[in-house]
Amino acid sequence: MAHSVDAATIRALESGLVSSGSIMVPCPWLPEIAAYARSHPEADLGLHLTLTSEWTSYRWGPVLSRDRVSSLLDHNSYFYLTESEAASHANAREVEAEIRAQIDRARAFGIKPTHLDSHMGTLYQNKALFETFLRVARDNKLPLRMSKEWVASTNYLSSILNPTDIAIDRIITIGPSVPSDGWSNFYADAIKTIQPGVTEMVVHIAYDDEEMRAATVDHPNWGAAWRQRDLQFFAGDTVRRLLQENHIKLVTWREIGKAQYPER
Amino acid sequence: MAHSVDAATIRALESGLVSSGSIMVPCPWLPEIAAYARSHPEADLGLHLTLTSEWTSYRWGPVLSRDRVSSLLDHNSYFYLTESEAASHANAREVEAEIRAQIDRARAFGIKPTHLDSHMGTLYQNKALFETFLRVARDNKLPLRMSKEWVASTNYLSSILNPTDIAIDRIITIGPSVPSDGWSNFYADAIKTIQPGVTEMVVHIAYDDEEMRAATVDHPNWGAAWRQRDLQFFAGDTVRRLLQENHIKLVTWREIGKAQYPER
Repeated sequence: MAHSVDAATIRALESGLVSSGSIMVPCPWLPEIAAYARSHPEADLGLHLTLTSEWTSYRWGPVLSRDRVSSLLDHNSYFYLTESEAASHANAREVEAEIRAQIDRARAFGIKPTHLDSHMGTLYQNKALFETFLRVARDNKLPLRMSKEWVASTNYLSSILNPTDIAIDRIITIGPSVPSDGWSNFYADAIKTIQPGVTEMVVHIAYDDEEMRAATVDHPNWGAAWRQRDLQFFAGDTVRRLLQENHIKLVTWREIGKAQYPER
Repeated sequence: MAHSVDAATIRALESGLVSSGSIMVPCPWLPEIAAYARSHPEADLGLHLTLTSEWTSYRWGPVLSRDRVSSLLDHNSYFYLTESEAASHANAREVEAEIRAQIDRARAFGIKPTHLDSHMGTLYQNKALFETFLRVARDNKLPLRMSKEWVASTNYLSSILNPTDIAIDRIITIGPSVPSDGWSNFYADAIKTIQPGVTEMVVHIAYDDEEMRAATVDHPNWGAAWRQRDLQFFAGDTVRRLLQENHIKLVTWREIGKAQYPER
């Protein structure tokens, strides 16, 4: 998303405590993280397929030519600000073309994505979008992030999913209801009470610096300070000790992809 | 170009010692500087029409749909890295469409540009590009930055310019041959020896911060430290005293535009 995100995420990956990241291809700092991916082929980096541009001072648009994806764009030719606007306007054929183009551009930059997920969850918003997402993931033999909890609670999925599609057990992510001084307790409790199976803890890592404060201006939720709190917890010794004490094994999306597509 | 540039340029404008700036419309931080332009209608802000994307970690592309300006784009669909690549590939009709679209987008964001110039001088590279630039400037009744020195040294201009086109007397800009500890002396000497007429001192202002260092990585010329040296000199007391002592009057492009288009 930004240099601050790239730099902090690289630090978190290299701490060994954050095991996977996902890349926003339409954003202007793509070449920076792509250079890291090329020089660190072991890094577990997927694609955070992007159909929204949610900040107000710093914005981005599609990889494809704007004329070809007009249903995805606001009146300034950027992606819409919110996932609900994006989902309600999106033509599924244009979505498919754009997300395939994001995967193609990532590969052209030497990124070998390990998995796919969706920025702000836009591709999970309705059946047409999710079917598109699933088709593109299967065609690329890449696992798509979804949880059994989400599958169980979503009524349009029964006719779409195959027995071979892998859903992880659950996804945990912090939300705006947690006060800033409750960050460590939230994550520590989540780790201590984690249930057997595969859990993804989704975090948003950046430095609380000038660039990030300006990008997220007027948005304390998922803002610069929020992201530095995530970095501090997940690149620190407390989480290392908690993972050991609770017998948690870090896995990667690369391993899940091998389980789903053993022939690949 | 970046948040660091926006923030430092606003500080320089508000020092009263930098009298004009120019905005790069295709860059992702456009909304940030547009908000400043809307809330500071007195600020003298033109457009730095942009057909190149010169950094390697942080890149941008056209305002228009990529299919419509393919002659302006490299194999990754960003603008070319250099002005010579851009000029040698550019189709003049596509250039005209793109720079008109940049002006239109600026106006859609509430910017009322006071003048036009060209990022890395791409639009001054050959007769076809300059004719296009001049036509667009005249149609928009906006002054275009050019100097009498440049006009005198450029052989393709005689059939193009009208007596009513305004060229300022000269443009001064620092170059890579000046060592970093020679910055103040270069600018002080330039101010002390300035000749009568209208001179533009072109400066490149930003903070030497993480964002700017990452954007300009491996490019010390016009890099982060360079730009902070420009800021330090041009928002400081030395330049204020030098301007007074040498009886230099700061003017704006808005005033030049009124001289060129009095009926506007």
